[in-house]
Formats: sequence, C-alpha cells, structure tokens
Amino acid sequence: MRMSKLYMPTLREVPSEAELPSHKLLLRAGMIKKLVSGVYTYLPMGYRVIRKIENIVREEMEKIDSQEVLMSAILPAELWQQTGRWEDFGPEMFKLHDRHGREFCLGPTHEEVFTDTIRHDVKSYKQLPLSLYQIQTKYRDEKRPRFGLMRSREFIMKDAYTFDVDEENMVKAYYEMWKAYEEIFKRCSLDFRVVEGDSGAMGGSDSHEFTAMSEYGESNIVYCDSCDYAATDEKAKCVYEQKADDAVAEELEKVHTPDVRTIDELSEFFGDSSSKFAKMVIYNVAGEIVAAMIPGDRELNEIKLLNILGAGEHEIQMASEEEVKAATGAEVGYAGPIGLAENVKLLVDSRVAAMKNFYIGANETGYHCKNANYGRDFEGEIVEDLLLAGEGDACPSCGGTLKMDRGIEIGNIFQLGTKYSKALGATYLDENGKEQDMVMGSHGIGVSRTMAAVIEQNYDEDGIIWPIALAPYEAIVAIVNVKDEEQVKLGEEIYSELKSMGVEVLLDDRKERAGVKFKDMDLVGIPLRITVGKRAPEGIVEFSNRRDREKVELEKSQLADKVKSEFEAQGLTI
Amino acid sequence: MRMSKLYMPTLREVPSEAELPSHKLLLRAGMIKKLVSGVYTYLPMGYRVIRKIENIVREEMEKIDSQEVLMSAILPAELWQQTGRWEDFGPEMFKLHDRHGREFCLGPTHEEVFTDTIRHDVKSYKQLPLSLYQIQTKYRDEKRPRFGLMRSREFIMKDAYTFDVDEENMVKAYYEMWKAYEEIFKRCSLDFRVVEGDSGAMGGSDSHEFTAMSEYGESNIVYCDSCDYAATDEKAKCVYEQKADDAVAEELEKVHTPDVRTIDELSEFFGDSSSKFAKMVIYNVAGEIVAAMIPGDRELNEIKLLNILGAGEHEIQMASEEEVKAATGAEVGYAGPIGLAENVKLLVDSRVAAMKNFYIGANETGYHCKNANYGRDFEGEIVEDLLLAGEGDACPSCGGTLKMDRGIEIGNIFQLGTKYSKALGATYLDENGKEQDMVMGSHGIGVSRTMAAVIEQNYDEDGIIWPIALAPYEAIVAIVNVKDEEQVKLGEEIYSELKSMGVEVLLDDRKERAGVKFKDMDLVGIPLRITVGKRAPEGIVEFSNRRDREKVELEKSQLADKVKSEFEAQGLTI
Repeated sequence: MRMSKLYMPTLREVPSEAELPSHKLLLRAGMIKKLVSGVYTYLPMGYRVIRKIENIVREEMEKIDSQEVLMSAILPAELWQQTGRWEDFGPEMFKLHDRHGREFCLGPTHEEVFTDTIRHDVKSYKQLPLSLYQIQTKYRDEKRPRFGLMRSREFIMKDAYTFDVDEENMVKAYYEMWKAYEEIFKRCSLDFRVVEGDSGAMGGSDSHEFTAMSEYGESNIVYCDSCDYAATDEKAKCVYEQKADDAVAEELEKVHTPDVRTIDELSEFFGDSSSKFAKMVIYNVAGEIVAAMIPGDRELNEIKLLNILGAGEHEIQMASEEEVKAATGAEVGYAGPIGLAENVKLLVDSRVAAMKNFYIGANETGYHCKNANYGRDFEGEIVEDLLLAGEGDACPSCGGTLKMDRGIEIGNIFQLGTKYSKALGATYLDENGKEQDMVMGSHGIGVSRTMAAVIEQNYDEDGIIWPIALAPYEAIVAIVNVKDEEQVKLGEEIYSELKSMGVEVLLDDRKERAGVKFKDMDLVGIPLRITVGKRAPEGIVEFSNRRDREKVELEKSQLADKVKSEFEAQGLTI
Repeated sequence: MRMSKLYMPTLREVPSEAELPSHKLLLRAGMIKKLVSGVYTYLPMGYRVIRKIENIVREEMEKIDSQEVLMSAILPAELWQQTGRWEDFGPEMFKLHDRHGREFCLGPTHEEVFTDTIRHDVKSYKQLPLSLYQIQTKYRDEKRPRFGLMRSREFIMKDAYTFDVDEENMVKAYYEMWKAYEEIFKRCSLDFRVVEGDSGAMGGSDSHEFTAMSEYGESNIVYCDSCDYAATDEKAKCVYEQKADDAVAEELEKVHTPDVRTIDELSEFFGDSSSKFAKMVIYNVAGEIVAAMIPGDRELNEIKLLNILGAGEHEIQMASEEEVKAATGAEVGYAGPIGLAENVKLLVDSRVAAMKNFYIGANETGYHCKNANYGRDFEGEIVEDLLLAGEGDACPSCGGTLKMDRGIEIGNIFQLGTKYSKALGATYLDENGKEQDMVMGSHGIGVSRTMAAVIEQNYDEDGIIWPIALAPYEAIVAIVNVKDEEQVKLGEEIYSELKSMGVEVLLDDRKERAGVKFKDMDLVGIPLRITVGKRAPEGIVEFSNRRDREKVELEKSQLADKVKSEFEAQGLTI
C-alpha cells in the first residue's frame, strides 16, 4: 500500500480524554476514531490488526473442531426472559422495539440464542459433542465506558459455546478451549496468566480468566509464589486469619469521638491498630439495605457480597447519606451493628465474629464504642468470607504467600453446566433413550480488547511496537526524499520485491519531510523498516526493527534474508 | 471437515413459510436458520459461503485501492437529523436509547457516518481521492420481510464511499467501482445486468443497479433489444406515446354506470379501448391527498410520483375508502378530476393532457363522464412522466423495442454529489486555498442477498449447485459404508490427499445409509464429489460434479488431475 493513498489520520496531540497508552496510541496512530462515548470506528490500519487477531482465533478454533457461525445482534426478549437475564442485565442491556412493538435487545452475549438454536436441531447423543463459535459485535451499555477499546459499549468478541452429554465431557471441552486460548494469546505475543475467575452473571460452577499483565489493567489478580494458584482478587478465597484472641470480654463503653470517622482517624484517636476495629459498609442491593462488617484493615469484596445475596452486578450501590441515616440514626462515619433499623440486613465476616474487644461505630453521631464482642453485643448473619484477598495473604491452595498484580481480562472460559439447557429445554436422548439436559460451556475472547492489551505490553515513548503477527503491515519502505529519482527507483524496487515475497508492506511515498515520516513510522509501529536515503545510488539502505531501532546499512540484495530472519526470530515464516 | 462432527441440520421437509428456491434450499440444507421474522442465523455451511463472497469483495476492493474500515452499527441520531434522514427513513429505521436517554439508530446505511468521519481528518485536496468500505451488518425494519435472505431485516452489506475533489473525479471513481462490481459478480458466477436505477432516498444524480436475473426477483427491469439501454421499470423513462388525436372536442356527457368501476369493466360497458380512459389513482403522501391521472391502459410509477413530490418511500399509501369519499364525494371506482375537494393535489400525466374525448369518473357514485378534455373540463399540474415503462415500449435511448425481465438487486452504485458533504460540512481546501464541498459516491453490495441470488441461478430439483468459488466446501468424499474397512481406508487417504492439495474437502464418515448421504450431497451442493464404495479394494472410486452428476470411475491416482481440471473449467486454480 502506498501511504500517499492510505487513510491514516495520525494526530500530533494526545487526545485529552485518553489516559491509557493503548487508548492514546490507537487514536494518535489513526487506528481508531471515537464516534460517541464508548463507540469507535476502526480505521484501515486498526481494522487490519483486528482481522489478524480474528484469523488467529479462527485457525485455533478450527484446530479444536469448533465451527464458525454468525448469530444476529438483535435478539428477541422472550429467550432472555426464559433464563431471567432480561432483568438481570439491568441498564447494561440496550433494548429496543421493532415496528410491531416486539421487544429485542442488542446481544451482550449469546448463551440464550446458541442454546435455542441447538435445541431444535440436536436430539440425540450421537450429535454431541458440538462446539460452535462466532466473531461478532457485542453491545453493553457500560455505565462508565473508558480506556478506549478496553471498556467500550460496542466491541468485537469471539464467543464459543460447547454442548456435551455430561459434566465430564464438558470439562474436557473446557480444557481444549483453554489450550486453544493459550495458543491464541501466545501467537499475539501476549504475556498473560490464567486465573480462577468468578462466574458471576453467567452462572455455572468453574471459570477461568485469561489476563494480560498490565499496570493499567482493571483486573487485580493474586498468585502464589510457591504453587501455580492464581485468581482474581474477587474470586480468591481470603485465607487471611485473625490471630486467636483469648482475651476476656470487657465492658462495652461508648466514647465521644467528634469528627473522627475513618479507620485511619479512629486508629490515631484511640492509638490502636486498624485491625482492632470492625468497619461497617452499607449498601443498597436491589432496594434492600445491607450492612456488612469486616475487619478494619481489610477491604470488602463486592462480588462475594453479591454472590451471597444472589444479586446482579448492576444491582449494588453504596447507600446514600439519607439511607445511612435512616439505617443507623447517625451521620456517615458512625455506623455500627448495635441498634440498626429493623429493615437492615446485617452480614458479619467470620473473622469479625472471632475478634475480641473491638471498636465499632455507636450509631450516634460523634460516638464510637470500644470492647464490642460478637454474640454478646450484637448478632447478624455470619458469612465465611466477605474479603478481597491481598498481597501477603496465605495461598488458599498451598499456604504460600500471595502476590498481587494487575491485568486486562482478554478471555474467559466458563463451565456453565445445565443452567441454560434447563431454562430453555435443550435436551437430548441418551443411549437408553432417556431425555437428558445438555451440559454447556461458554468461552469468550475480547478481540478488540486484545488489540489494546497487545499495545499496553508493546510500546515506548514514541509509539506502538507491533509484533509481526499482528502488525497492520509487516514492513515499511520509507523514501526519504521523493524528489530524488534514485531514491524513488530503489524504494519502488524494494517495495515490489518485498510484496512479491509475500510481505505486507507500506511504501512511504508521501511528499513529507523526513522527520514526519520517521515520527509516523515510530508512532504506527510497523515492525520492519527500510529507509531509502542518500546512499540509494550505491544500492544501500538502512534497516531497523521497531523494537530496538538499531540501524544497519544493507545492500538491496541482503534485504530478503534479513526480513526472513526477522520473521523467524518471532517464530514466523515468510 | 468430518461430517460426523459437522453442524449441518438438514431438513427433509420444506419449511412452510419459504416460497423461493433460495429460501427453501438455504433452510433445508442447514445453511441458515430463522431466529425471528427477517432475522437469520448463519450456520457453519452458510457462513462459509458468506465469507467466500466477502473475500472476493475484499480482493476486488483492494485492487481499486478502496480501504477497509469498520463503523459502528449504533449511530447517533444527530448526524441523521442533520441530513434529514432521521425522519425520512420512517419506521424502517430501528431506533433506541442508551442509558442516558441519547437517541441512536441501528445503521440502515452509513453515508452520514462516513462523511462525519472524513470531515474531521481530510482538509486538503492533497488527501483526496479517498475510497473506503466496510463489510458490516445493516438493519432495516422491513414492513414485510420475506424470501429469506432476499429481504431480511438484518443483512450483511459491503458499503463503499468515495470522496473526490470534483464531479469529474467522482464519476471516475464511480466507473472504477462499476468495473470492480462486475468482476465480483462474475467471480460469483452470476448472470447479471447493470441497469439505470432510481436514486431515491440516497439523493444524488445518477445511479446503477446490478441485477441478478431471476424469475423470482423483486426488480423489474427493461432493456432494449437494439442498444445497451437497461433500467429498472421505475427508473426507465416511459416513451410510450399517445397517437396524435386531431378529433374535435365533443360535449362532456355524464353516463349512468352502475357497479361499473374498473377499467376492464368500463371498457366492456362502453365498448371502447382502455386507452380511451383516464384513470385516477388517489394516494395519501405524507398526509397530503394526491390524485394522479394516467392513461387507462398504463400503470402508475409510484417512485416517479414520490420523486416529483420529494417524498420518501415509506410516506406513500393508497388513500383509504374514507379519504377517497372525502376527496371525490363518491364511492371508490368513480373518481375523476372534475370537482375534487379543495385539499386534493391533482397531477396529470402529460399523455392524458394530450388525449381527446376520453372517459373519466364523475365523482358521483354510479356515474362516469365521456368526452372529457384537459383544459376545457379540468386542470391540474401536468407532469411529464408518471408511468411505469413496459414490454414493447420504445427505448428512450435508440427508439428500439423494450423487453422486460425480472431480477434481484445485488448491488448498486450512486453518484451522491454534495448532498451529504453540504449537510455535514465535509469540505476541503483546493489548490487555491478555497473551501470546496467534497463530491461523494456511495456503493453497496448485498453480501447475504448475493448468496441467495447465486442459489436462484444454480439449483435443480434436488438441491443447490454451488460454483466452486463460493461452495462451503469444494469437494466431498463420501464413504458409502463406514463399516467396510477398505472403503474407510481409501476414503481417508483421498480425504488427506485432497486436503494436502489445498482443496477444501468434506469427508462423509457418518453412520448413515448411502441414500441419506447421496441426498444430502445433492441438497448441499458441493461441486466435486468422490464416492468410495464397492470397488474400493481395487482403488477405484466414482467421481461426479454436482451440476451434471455424470459418474465416472477413476483410479485414486487419477483424482488429483480430475479435480484440477474441474477447477480450471471454472477459471480457478488449485
């Protein structure tokens, strides 16, 4: 492709709304363009990358005999009503009517529709297993779309669904998918971890997330330094233990604590460690006021809270000031478990129940209590584990020490079991002619998010550094001065030669200053670069790759081998 | 691919809602599946065909330097309001709100969004011309979705947009696109005609439709038997001429015509030719009552009527009985131009104005008038041409004789001019630094409809006959009896050999009766067929192609050459 014809509107300025490197660079390099908040256009260079990721996905899916289909994006409400997710998805679901008033949504995921499709056609165990996938545009009306392709409202996803005769075969399909995903992300040159995930709104028993490591990722993961345990902090069982405390229960005592509200302030006021406090966090969950008590030095895990309550992610919000006052009779900062309003559901983390003589809010503005003790002073529903795991906690698998890291969720695999087949009647006749529910799995890859994740792991101060396998073009030939006939001639020759080798190559034939060309070359991140400049009359050009940018002078005849060796260095052939 | 694993739910019964061969066969062959009216799932075999068409489109677009992008399917209302099409599209547009109440539509086409994208990035004549396209899912909430993929509410379209400095360059881009489209449809083995089309809701000056010939097509086209003139019947200028009539105007006379309403009935009643009548057709167009007078033996062209009135396709409907009564004072069947209600707009085809002593309705139930004459008895707005062209009319280009045929509109190209660039401010600075409107073109191919059109031209009583270039698989190896070890061994060998040649091949390894396999083979229409049966021990198989189904016995060693020659016969190499 000649860059004089290429539509690649690079920006000199960093767009103000962009915070993450991938977001900034995708916009600056003219790869995507915002239409409205959370909705992007893929421009030619960006879409080439998307299609390369898609093709890698297709190749690996084909290897495990998963077959490609394409479902509609507009999905009838009835199917979602049958599984209860029409309501569960809440405002994240785009809903619409057709001209006859029939209700539809824009598919945020496709479990219902795949299950519905299959149930009409598959009647016998002989037709199973079945693995189907699609690469399709999905819609989720995020409350706060942000970070470009990382959390957008319209995004490209590969979603696969497996149908098996029993749990054992479903788990087998699950691990096949796992292996395929590992292969896909390796081919995308990603540094990733597979971690235990929360099944959340999907239902089902077990799930794993594929997380591309990145300091800007929205997923916190914990992993063990001794064994291979890894999980999201939301999923990880928190095995942090209170020290056994044999102290005698002392008398509950109300203390005047004017303007002392936070755990830090209380810790300073009382001169005692934050672990001696029990903090109360008050939520409105689907209309119900829920107060959760946890140790003062820990963080509450909202996902665990929701799973305990059986509520959906969009149904939780912090209680308002008014709700706190109504629940506690006090201003925010003085909430405690004694004397709560009757409509408040009180959940107590098991480790609070085991604490002795701890501090709590007094439910009276300006007062806290010391020497509180569970059972004697208050009671609630004891919950085994309401906490986020954290750095330094014990590994729930081997007792080693957990570390924390951040990452981007680029894929997930779910063992769905029979949730959807039961709800929609996807059954088959087994060898004995008996009707059985199909056992399902659901497996996703964020295709557009993967593009962003690759950039988060591959950039420097001047731009993107594409791996060859995903680069919009694999090589670029830049003619420094297009008014110099010899440079043009040599540049064109090399351009043709590389094309005939099967290399995807750009020719920078623009009437721009050399500085502009070099800056764009760095920004857009084409991996292999050939600069045709002053030594053109001798047939000598400069070669560099985008990552190290070390220039070597080569004769034209040496270029083919050099390019081949660069491909081989990345595990590719040309 | 092994058919034992393939998801291809063929049907023995013809689904009752399907009328057209393509609709029946796509459903029966397990290539598509209805989700709701006008919305289909592409199953594995069908989606492979779609992807082949897409790839042909991509290759031909690349040849003319059109660059692929991907736009959002959810489009903000504001852009459409700026061009006036938010209203123009009427109920065909799916509309929705996001969680903040912002209005969007599901894109029925993308002129607005491409123009909006370009206007921010392209500022100078140096950046033009530009040609962009996408292959994307489009949404039109058809009043009567029907014929499967032929007229669906969700469909796959290739839409391209060109941006040029002036009319001349835009027309050049238009003809480049034309040539590319011809190439695409030739590669799809389609028998098609390029005909003049109506620009309709698109605006702009000139347009052409690519029409795949088919008796079931919804497009009527006329073409000249002497020159290369061809157009849709809606677009074709009707040069049918009334014979000059020098008769003296006779006296207008009211005649009692009880229960005589239609032209046929009137013709019989008066014993005069239908060409001696002027019929009046009454519409409600965007709330206005419009009466159109045309010769009694011709058909009114609603598109011409709408173009004259500047109204959109969804804004026209036949006047109701009540509206007819209010306009004419009479029951339906007696409408005429004399004494219409004041709010009625009367349009008169120029050929009616030239008629002498003709029959009209009297606007009184049970009465018509004879010897009506334009000017003396009534006046209206004379319109040059309100008629559908028809078989036997004179060619507007050479005067030859027009023939009529039916076809499927699979592509269209539009010279848009500056309609969208003016509305959205897409300007550039010319060589003199003067601001100019970009001159645009818009060009579409119905990808999913093309699949249906190929079937309409390629089937027989037993199923589809795919051309090799589009077939979901190019060859099939059917093992007649999978319990016979020698058949299995030879079948597997041939399957491997063909795969290693690069042939896309199915292996029918199912435990089904031979009859089922042969029926499916015919139904699904794989072009090259190898049957491994009783002569397997001798290394002999049967070869046939789907079109003629003539079987020849071949030794295994002869197969590769046979397959190659079949590819060559269709202009392909393997």
